Amino acid sequence: MFNIALFGAGRIGQVHAVNIAAHKESRIYSVIDPNQSAAAELAEKYQAKVQDVESAMNDPQVHAVLIASATDTHADLIELAAKHNKAIFCEKPVHLDIDRVRHCLKVVEQQKVPLFIGFNRRYDPQFRQVKTLAQAGNIGKAESLLIISRDPSPPPAEYVRVSGGMFRDMTIHDFDMARFIIGEEPESIFAQGSNLVDPAIGQAGDIDTAFIVIKFPSGAMATIVNSRRSGYGYDQRLELHGEKGVLTATNIKENSVEQWDQTGCTAAKPEHFFLQRYSAAYAAEWQHFIDVLAGRASPECSGIDGERALYLADKALESMKSGKCVAL
Amino acid sequence: MFNIALFGAGRIGQVHAVNIAAHKESRIYSVIDPNQSAAAELAEKYQAKVQDVESAMNDPQVHAVLIASATDTHADLIELAAKHNKAIFCEKPVHLDIDRVRHCLKVVEQQKVPLFIGFNRRYDPQFRQVKTLAQAGNIGKAESLLIISRDPSPPPAEYVRVSGGMFRDMTIHDFDMARFIIGEEPESIFAQGSNLVDPAIGQAGDIDTAFIVIKFPSGAMATIVNSRRSGYGYDQRLELHGEKGVLTATNIKENSVEQWDQTGCTAAKPEHFFLQRYSAAYAAEWQHFIDVLAGRASPECSGIDGERALYLADKALESMKSGKCVAL
Amino acid sequence: MFNIALFGAGRIGQVHAVNIAAHKESRIYSVIDPNQSAAAELAEKYQAKVQDVESAMNDPQVHAVLIASATDTHADLIELAAKHNKAIFCEKPVHLDIDRVRHCLKVVEQQKVPLFIGFNRRYDPQFRQVKTLAQAGNIGKAESLLIISRDPSPPPAEYVRVSGGMFRDMTIHDFDMARFIIGEEPESIFAQGSNLVDPAIGQAGDIDTAFIVIKFPSGAMATIVNSRRSGYGYDQRLELHGEKGVLTATNIKENSVEQWDQTGCTAAKPEHFFLQRYSAAYAAEWQHFIDVLAGRASPECSGIDGERALYLADKALESMKSGKCVAL
Amino acid sequence: MFNIALFGAGRIGQVHAVNIAAHKESRIYSVIDPNQSAAAELAEKYQAKVQDVESAMNDPQVHAVLIASATDTHADLIELAAKHNKAIFCEKPVHLDIDRVRHCLKVVEQQKVPLFIGFNRRYDPQFRQVKTLAQAGNIGKAESLLIISRDPSPPPAEYVRVSGGMFRDMTIHDFDMARFIIGEEPESIFAQGSNLVDPAIGQAGDIDTAFIVIKFPSGAMATIVNSRRSGYGYDQRLELHGEKGVLTATNIKENSVEQWDQTGCTAAKPEHFFLQRYSAAYAAEWQHFIDVLAGRASPECSGIDGERALYLADKALESMKSGKCVAL
Repeated sequence: MFNIALFGAGRIGQVHAVNIAAHKESRIYSVIDPNQSAAAELAEKYQAKVQDVESAMNDPQVHAVLIASATDTHADLIELAAKHNKAIFCEKPVHLDIDRVRHCLKVVEQQKVPLFIGFNRRYDPQFRQVKTLAQAGNIGKAESLLIISRDPSPPPAEYVRVSGGMFRDMTIHDFDMARFIIGEEPESIFAQGSNLVDPAIGQAGDIDTAFIVIKFPSGAMATIVNSRRSGYGYDQRLELHGEKGVLTATNIKENSVEQWDQTGCTAAKPEHFFLQRYSAAYAAEWQHFIDVLAGRASPECSGIDGERALYLADKALESMKSGKCVAL
Repeated sequence: MFNIALFGAGRIGQVHAVNIAAHKESRIYSVIDPNQSAAAELAEKYQAKVQDVESAMNDPQVHAVLIASATDTHADLIELAAKHNKAIFCEKPVHLDIDRVRHCLKVVEQQKVPLFIGFNRRYDPQFRQVKTLAQAGNIGKAESLLIISRDPSPPPAEYVRVSGGMFRDMTIHDFDMARFIIGEEPESIFAQGSNLVDPAIGQAGDIDTAFIVIKFPSGAMATIVNSRRSGYGYDQRLELHGEKGVLTATNIKENSVEQWDQTGCTAAKPEHFFLQRYSAAYAAEWQHFIDVLAGRASPECSGIDGERALYLADKALESMKSGKCVAL
Repeated sequence: MFNIALFGAGRIGQVHAVNIAAHKESRIYSVIDPNQSAAAELAEKYQAKVQDVESAMNDPQVHAVLIASATDTHADLIELAAKHNKAIFCEKPVHLDIDRVRHCLKVVEQQKVPLFIGFNRRYDPQFRQVKTLAQAGNIGKAESLLIISRDPSPPPAEYVRVSGGMFRDMTIHDFDMARFIIGEEPESIFAQGSNLVDPAIGQAGDIDTAFIVIKFPSGAMATIVNSRRSGYGYDQRLELHGEKGVLTATNIKENSVEQWDQTGCTAAKPEHFFLQRYSAAYAAEWQHFIDVLAGRASPECSGIDGERALYLADKALESMKSGKCVAL
Repeated sequence: MFNIALFGAGRIGQVHAVNIAAHKESRIYSVIDPNQSAAAELAEKYQAKVQDVESAMNDPQVHAVLIASATDTHADLIELAAKHNKAIFCEKPVHLDIDRVRHCLKVVEQQKVPLFIGFNRRYDPQFRQVKTLAQAGNIGKAESLLIISRDPSPPPAEYVRVSGGMFRDMTIHDFDMARFIIGEEPESIFAQGSNLVDPAIGQAGDIDTAFIVIKFPSGAMATIVNSRRSGYGYDQRLELHGEKGVLTATNIKENSVEQWDQTGCTAAKPEHFFLQRYSAAYAAEWQHFIDVLAGRASPECSGIDGERALYLADKALESMKSGKCVAL
């Protein structure tokens, strides 16, 4: 039974708490959050302790930390946990500044602790199945990848201002997905963007709609279609075209009911947002981390993946500003 | 926080255990099972007691019982729980003999305890949505209902022998669904069956494939299409045709991935069986029972529903044997 | 080049005219219709003659007749054409009275002319593909067949009065389909019906909604779900379940466009009615008849199929009236 | 009745011949083709004359010409027809050289004859429905457009050599579609391409796989996903995202049959290639041209559309070579 110290009692922390508690090999040992009452409430539900950062890090009972706290605390907590020899599960991103990320990863490397970065979409049953079938050779050599990724509705402009921009905040998932599915490091990137959804986002210096084209050394290409607002729920799809065919992963609808009448056919929307769509993915990534803790696996998705995705975000921004395809 | 005594530590008991523990208003107080080690293991996982029937029934801390034990113990446990004033959640069926069912329901009625019979499919998000949209008048007056219900593979003949026959064991869910969706008591029933799937089922005196036609007082009709084996997973669909259109509920696939190549399009099967397809339904029926316990609702699905479904099963058998449409 | 005498210049005659003229091995030689101006207009378009029945039958230039005239003229025209040694393509039905049908078929048999009865649905690419895949053994032995057949809207009561009743007028196609797909002669039939769509149909002594259960000697069963009104266009589907899986044929939508927005997904209705849905089937059945004329094939669907379908209609009526399953 | 002189008796000429002959307001008056026997065969089938270019152009009986001859003859024939005051239906493209196109269009303009360029996809019922619903305001302001356009298999390298390159030969349809759907003139274009499908195409100096990003003055963007080979038939889809939702147009399958078994669900491929997928479009564009001839409409798709699509192809090539987004 692995004892987990959970950093962050907010929305995403609670999602992880359910999976930690439900897994037969793990339990929530302690909750750490600057918001004391949130920490206390979550701890009580799972009969866990409330700790502060220092006591959790120094507690020999803690086998691993799950970092689901504010983004700007991730790198510090990772370094601290690494220095205390705790295995680490950290929500993406490591940090919004790539130099800070690189420094952090060096510390982890020196300490030789396992670090798993929670790119949840890699564990979505649809996308995972695409990867599995592609690796099995079902469609031959990969040639082009199409990633459609649209949020249900835009975040407030205040959030946008501290988010690092759409590429670092939202597209970063898609950059990781492109690398995950194609299995190569990109060699060039081009990005085009617009501010169409909310003028406040433009005023905050950001875009809300983007098309990105990535080329890989093998000649394979990927395009990412992004928007901060779909109008019909969370739109998360991909298509991988290969020499023998295509693998497509579509949205999951809220239910399978259709109504047919004089106006045609009406059906449900896609599941609303990431908590719904990726609920199975959160459970699956926890299973993987348990396998890491038990020595049955190494982290499939580690600090280097976080760094590479952030690097692509930085270069996409450079491309959009210059109107040029940027070599990587 | 409602304390639940869980009778039955087997497969379906474990499904309910997850939902009881996950709900913020309930917890597993005790587990009761003739298999002592199964009871102990389940109790330990949820930090609950192991009790025997008598102590659980007499324990004033127990607010409600969940009966997930062997079928032939249901009626006895219901009566016992009723006499001890425990609220009751019982897996279907109450009993395979309708006179025993009727006696049991009289006891419950005298004790005025709430009794919920777990016809899980009523809580499936697809079927529930059909009911909701139909009640909202979306397709006008209901006219014909088509229920397709096929298991992935047949049970062993030994099970068939003690099952009460396909109509009482399997079709009983569909009889309940027909009553639930149409919202009337049937006035006649016709059944036609065959033994096509496994000769051992025929030797056990049962059928494995059936078509049933039910007529309701309003003139609305329902047909049920049953098989003990689909060959492609659990097939659970329905169509409700009304004066203005149709509502259809289809299967949920294991994933949304499609592969398109020279041979056409290939996609995943429906979810395998009831534990997968109805996992959301089990959570939803538990939510309803919590609402009953908290006085926010009365059981939507009670003993009378169990009795009526069994009555239809008995009459379907009579129709199949006589080749006549049987008045109800 | 086969010269075709077309009897009937109405709606269905015009559909056949297009296919006759488009085929490189046939042409419209003459048009015969009591409505002289309709005959003249259709003849002019295709540079064909106008003839009367006698002259067409006696014209040695006529290789074959296509009978698309009023239902009550079919049997007489078939006999006349047979006696004049013309190959015959006749729209269903031969006649509404089974004794008249049997007499007519005897005449045809004596004259040894090819007779093709236009059960168009056998040539629908969807249903044909189901038959082809089933015969290829894809799903093993056939076990149950589900035919859903619903018209977009009910005919006027005046038509109903002379139609021979829903079973002879509409279900007859589904009886033929059941025989075609299963490939056996049924051994029993049960029918249940209601008058739900239009009271005038009930006053005309007919029903408008029906469920029919047919059993075959192998134990395979079929059910037919009928309504004179769908509310969402022409609903023409089937499912054939076998020991290894199921083959389904669904409707064809008017177009493939979907709109996703806050209210969910909206798509087009099925194609409106038989002229749209079965346009490919009409061309395919004409190709088959050309093969018959050219000696490359025998009629796949002949007088005996017309007679058997009518027999099932008669027996379905008997079952509905008696409430009993009728042996065949 | 409009008399049409058909230039080109090849595959696409034959497709148009069927529609010309089937339309009640038009007939094939003559066929012109350097291949005399092909011209004679087609003419005979439709009881038309065989003419040479000069006699057809000078024949006062000819109301309009349909140019379906070799690509390099289009511009000359258009000019000739314009000078003889014939209405013109010309298959795309006008010419592969944009200066030649511009000169040709000037001649047409001077003669004031109607010129329709056959961008068939604008008349596909799916894409037309997207345009119609978008214009009706169903999804609000257009924001991003995704065009997926993949041929079933690559052309031979000899064809590639004279094709003008993939952008002018194949993507030209997609450039027109982007302009048609968005309804604005693009302001910039970026293209990225690879030679992945057939090395012989690369040796011929061309690519076979491309991603293109187009930006419009409103900020709306389009991306085009192209490949010379899909491996699963003709892949022709689009998605138009707007402020309130998305409109999607998917492929049409060869049939609607699905097989469900142990391996999952199997269904048919998309229709094979343009002759199948766009058969309804060819009939619809002919209907439009008849409306033009009858004075009921002006050409919706004219020489300027041909020129603009070719201009985008030229600029896409420039972008791909320079690695820069090219202003238009």
